[in-house]
Amino acid sequence: MARARLRDLGIATGSLPPGRWNAITDVPGVRVGTTTLIRDTPSIIRTGVTAIWPRGPELWTDAVFAGIHSFNGNGEMTGWAWIAEQGLLASPICITNTQSVGVVRDAVCALSVRDNPSTPWVLPVVAETFDGWLSDATSFPVTAEHAIAALDAAATGPVAEGNVGGGTAMICHEFKGGTGTASRVVMAAGEQFTVGALVQANYGARELLRVDGVPVGREIGTDVVPSPRDAPREAGSIIVVLATDAPLLPIQCQRLARRATTGLAWVGGIGFNGSGDIFLAFATGNHMRQGEAISALRMLSPDNMNSLFQAAAEATEEAILNALTAAETMTGHAGHTAHALPLDRLVDVMHRFRPSR
Amino acid sequence: MARARLRDLGIATGSLPPGRWNAITDVPGVRVGTTTLIRDTPSIIRTGVTAIWPRGPELWTDAVFAGIHSFNGNGEMTGWAWIAEQGLLASPICITNTQSVGVVRDAVCALSVRDNPSTPWVLPVVAETFDGWLSDATSFPVTAEHAIAALDAAATGPVAEGNVGGGTAMICHEFKGGTGTASRVVMAAGEQFTVGALVQANYGARELLRVDGVPVGREIGTDVVPSPRDAPREAGSIIVVLATDAPLLPIQCQRLARRATTGLAWVGGIGFNGSGDIFLAFATGNHMRQGEAISALRMLSPDNMNSLFQAAAEATEEAILNALTAAETMTGHAGHTAHALPLDRLVDVMHRFRPSR
Amino acid sequence: MARARLRDLGIATGSLPPGRWNAITDVPGVRVGTTTLIRDTPSIIRTGVTAIWPRGPELWTDAVFAGIHSFNGNGEMTGWAWIAEQGLLASPICITNTQSVGVVRDAVCALSVRDNPSTPWVLPVVAETFDGWLSDATSFPVTAEHAIAALDAAATGPVAEGNVGGGTAMICHEFKGGTGTASRVVMAAGEQFTVGALVQANYGARELLRVDGVPVGREIGTDVVPSPRDAPREAGSIIVVLATDAPLLPIQCQRLARRATTGLAWVGGIGFNGSGDIFLAFATGNHMRQGEAISALRMLSPDNMNSLFQAAAEATEEAILNALTAAETMTGHAGHTAHALPLDRLVDVMHRFRPSR
Amino acid sequence: MARARLRDLGIATGSLPPGRWNAITDVPGVRVGTTTLIRDTPSIIRTGVTAIWPRGPELWTDAVFAGIHSFNGNGEMTGWAWIAEQGLLASPICITNTQSVGVVRDAVCALSVRDNPSTPWVLPVVAETFDGWLSDATSFPVTAEHAIAALDAAATGPVAEGNVGGGTAMICHEFKGGTGTASRVVMAAGEQFTVGALVQANYGARELLRVDGVPVGREIGTDVVPSPRDAPREAGSIIVVLATDAPLLPIQCQRLARRATTGLAWVGGIGFNGSGDIFLAFATGNHMRQGEAISALRMLSPDNMNSLFQAAAEATEEAILNALTAAETMTGHAGHTAHALPLDRLVDVMHRFRPSR
Repeated sequence: MARARLRDLGIATGSLPPGRWNAITDVPGVRVGTTTLIRDTPSIIRTGVTAIWPRGPELWTDAVFAGIHSFNGNGEMTGWAWIAEQGLLASPICITNTQSVGVVRDAVCALSVRDNPSTPWVLPVVAETFDGWLSDATSFPVTAEHAIAALDAAATGPVAEGNVGGGTAMICHEFKGGTGTASRVVMAAGEQFTVGALVQANYGARELLRVDGVPVGREIGTDVVPSPRDAPREAGSIIVVLATDAPLLPIQCQRLARRATTGLAWVGGIGFNGSGDIFLAFATGNHMRQGEAISALRMLSPDNMNSLFQAAAEATEEAILNALTAAETMTGHAGHTAHALPLDRLVDVMHRFRPSR
Repeated sequence: MARARLRDLGIATGSLPPGRWNAITDVPGVRVGTTTLIRDTPSIIRTGVTAIWPRGPELWTDAVFAGIHSFNGNGEMTGWAWIAEQGLLASPICITNTQSVGVVRDAVCALSVRDNPSTPWVLPVVAETFDGWLSDATSFPVTAEHAIAALDAAATGPVAEGNVGGGTAMICHEFKGGTGTASRVVMAAGEQFTVGALVQANYGARELLRVDGVPVGREIGTDVVPSPRDAPREAGSIIVVLATDAPLLPIQCQRLARRATTGLAWVGGIGFNGSGDIFLAFATGNHMRQGEAISALRMLSPDNMNSLFQAAAEATEEAILNALTAAETMTGHAGHTAHALPLDRLVDVMHRFRPSR
Repeated sequence: MARARLRDLGIATGSLPPGRWNAITDVPGVRVGTTTLIRDTPSIIRTGVTAIWPRGPELWTDAVFAGIHSFNGNGEMTGWAWIAEQGLLASPICITNTQSVGVVRDAVCALSVRDNPSTPWVLPVVAETFDGWLSDATSFPVTAEHAIAALDAAATGPVAEGNVGGGTAMICHEFKGGTGTASRVVMAAGEQFTVGALVQANYGARELLRVDGVPVGREIGTDVVPSPRDAPREAGSIIVVLATDAPLLPIQCQRLARRATTGLAWVGGIGFNGSGDIFLAFATGNHMRQGEAISALRMLSPDNMNSLFQAAAEATEEAILNALTAAETMTGHAGHTAHALPLDRLVDVMHRFRPSR
Repeated sequence: MARARLRDLGIATGSLPPGRWNAITDVPGVRVGTTTLIRDTPSIIRTGVTAIWPRGPELWTDAVFAGIHSFNGNGEMTGWAWIAEQGLLASPICITNTQSVGVVRDAVCALSVRDNPSTPWVLPVVAETFDGWLSDATSFPVTAEHAIAALDAAATGPVAEGNVGGGTAMICHEFKGGTGTASRVVMAAGEQFTVGALVQANYGARELLRVDGVPVGREIGTDVVPSPRDAPREAGSIIVVLATDAPLLPIQCQRLARRATTGLAWVGGIGFNGSGDIFLAFATGNHMRQGEAISALRMLSPDNMNSLFQAAAEATEEAILNALTAAETMTGHAGHTAHALPLDRLVDVMHRFRPSR
């Protein structure tokens, strides 16, 4: 069965409608780019960089609001301090492998020197998950050029999923994981807003995997589709980036980010100790232009945030599942193989657990 | 069908075994007491106080470690500052209604004056959920004597659930909610530890209610069992108290508390804006005795915490479900009625969604 | 020498100009009221309540933004969770003694029932410092009526300092402490803003007391003015409330609150373990009216906050010093006496340490 | 007048005694190394790397406890998430310039691959301050080799101060700043402990500079010693690393880190908006060895922490002043010159403001 998105399999999770591409790029202005490195010499590399632009290049001087929540902080997200302090994000976000956070972080500085020279410094946001089971991570395979290529390639429209970008060599619920995305469209305060999620999913135990509540991981088991048993299943991570065009304040972005926990829980993530489960939410609905002494803002009232909360949870859930259904079986470093979630088995289990009406 | 605990209905959630009473009191030394106020004159009162002692009365001078996580802070938990600062808890925890937090808080001070006079002050931990839809909350029905009665009545053994204590007039997923508890027994680092949860469950939308992943709320709907539609369904709260006898540090108690989010998500809580979803975890495995200049402690290594994390999520999930299955239909203030979760319907839905083998 | 404000003694700290009353009430709309309890039967009581209204009574339905910083959390400030979550404050702030936090907290609920009945609940902010050395604190002397009297008495204009309100029995740097206030007027983004501070100062060691950098505490010593040596000098607290009319977001109020640490450090506070050094800042420059789905806001740009930061530090510093210079020697519970800072000695030391030009 | 340490000038701040070297290396096991880059071609570079080892190389498998406080988070400290989560630090700390955080961060990963190959990944702690006014920062002058050289060169004993390591091109209170260190020895719980500080000081306004409370910055003014007026005086940063051998828990390290705010305030730092004022404290008094399922720990009781708090504030204060008195006038990038604090003027002002007895 060819790899597919979850909805292409006739499986829908949540109750809110997705956007046009069911992707983080449904939020107007958001762009995603990836660099994927797959090579077998001199050592076996399966890695990459995923870049997310909250706005077009005007982002350098027209910041968005952002907030971070760490559900389990055994990971890295640079740029944390300024987002916690003032909630402003004025540079693109990257996700890569654990050992390459630094080079990608400095590459964003270099991009700022190239494209935004009047600003003396930026505080880039770069997050990571570990891919050393399928990739020779300790060879430090990512270069600044790789990161800049992903940043320069960013575009709106459908987003590549599965074994791409920073998500290339992920393992999720002991199946092959990767990059996934989804979105939801909601009404709040009489206006229509979109919430999108992009995940780099590299966490979890098979027996905890659920799809729309159905215990898919337990049902599939490990007989037919072996688990990468020596892979550090409790040592993965998941990075969730949430985007919305709603006019949220920084403190409201923090609230939105916390809801990624809910979507993650629905799929079966409980934040194992070794996991870096770090979530960032940004909101493009306000503009804080460089040099502006006082910015005119709008704030969605707190009691109008509920649909956004549900959307954040649902988009996170489906983005993870899209990573699982899109990712293909991969063999890599040290002869390790991570098997893809078998889609026929998935569909079969879902049918067995959902009564016909 | 008589009210029951979830497991009495043949429904088990999670995979870890519960303790003897499947209650927070399975953690050695933990005691629970309740005062329940149900009266119809001069106004209709449905409220109470739930008291939790992490240890026996030696708690006043032999503190436990504790940590707090606020998933959605539209609520109150006094004593927050000192637990965030140093992670020490040396007084019992109470849960009551929103308008009575103060009187209960000062009652714990009074109890300290009575039983622990050598300590000049304490910083009591009192949390709340709102019960004004079924109870005349603005009459401030709880007195210091009610609180002290709950504190003095605390005992080990089975814990009363449903319409008792602070949980008396709760509404949960638009059914009658209340007080619930559960526990899990795990092995970690070669030792056996217990994790217990007690919840005061007053939150949530019916269509989001899940039991072991099955969309019970959506299936039952509102035709036969009407929802309290004018009740502030997005304005509830849930307080979760987690207990363990594992030797955790304060920072590890914070980590445990965050896992209540996962259990809550499994049942269908997404942290509506109006909800005070505040979780406290305490660990009795270490002793910090008053006057001790240097305390000898043990710390469970972080990578041995995974079973505790799962236990915390599972105990929270089942404690909420026990609140729902134990609580009886209640009519109260202003003629309002909150209907109990119909157990026959619950069992029926579960059967339809779980394939026979 | 009669008690005085610091500036009346010819001593000015900081470099920014104060407002008209050099008080928190210089921030337009801010009102302060106090109830002071001084009686000798049936037991010796020296306590009270200080109430601060960020706006007029429209506050109930027109919230201000707020943020909290705990420099050392051995204390209590109720209402923390919602301010941390969403940064909204829609009820008045009270400060009282440690044992009376609860009764004052519920009194604010009762006031809301009286004056704001359409809102089902509020989450009052009540903070405390311990006054049990000069007052029979364990008799729980404060009643709801005392709190409501302070709240109803709130007014603009000069603010009573020293032995008044919640600050009645304070001890600060081993002198008699109490309530103090100060303000600063600054320009930012081409507009004029005011920052005001009100403190309840009950902390500190004498040898660390500084006035404009001069080691006043060390110079005065304990020979002539004995220290209340058995008073819990390392067990005090300081509550700082900062107000501004600048258009700050919640996250910016958190930033402002952290600067109280700087002002406190300048006077000699280092956050002893037993001290509850908790700071709240609110900003009236924006309006979030109940029922408003989207609020139009303004945000002062971050790089225009520096003058506010300095103003917050300076106002905190001078407010503490005003508490010290205003407070009179007090004899209370158990025959204890706390001696006032001797103003003639203060002036003399300042002259010796400041070279004539 | 030759550059000197503050105490060599006859000026002592604080009241606690320093350790043998009055340096962070007075804490047993702590080692410091620096790489300093000063060259004029192809562009003018004034930068470097400072490395701090909390223990010897056994650190990789014998972690220390740590805690972070961000007083003003306009900066970067990688590794934050894991320290916030679990408070464990198992790799050396580096400080460098803003644009080189990434390369130094990955260099620590590379060092772990070299020296600690059995551990699949580390989460390095690298912090920064901006040096682009005196150095061509956007040429990304630091390499992995530079970082590893600093790490390999780390030693106990006296620590180089002033224009060295990451502190090479700092500007502090509009004088030449840099690297500084100091320590204090205290008794707590009947044992002797040391608290050391190392700062990279690059912040502040001249008129706010104080030495032992004396307004040195205002007195020296800008007539004789011009200020680098176009340098971003409100855009600097200060990184403070605090070390102690006391047996503190992670939550207690957080408390210690917050006290750097007090020492900073005493010198005149108020956390300007553009400043990354981030403080990390670690405690070597406990051992958490890799593979250990349960660690035996000791905890200093909270009420025995006061002397450590004062020591942290005093060591931070003196470390900053040592940076100022050690740093020499530097001319660099774009013809910019930062003038050293004139020591003769400093001594003169101190004499004028301190009365003879």
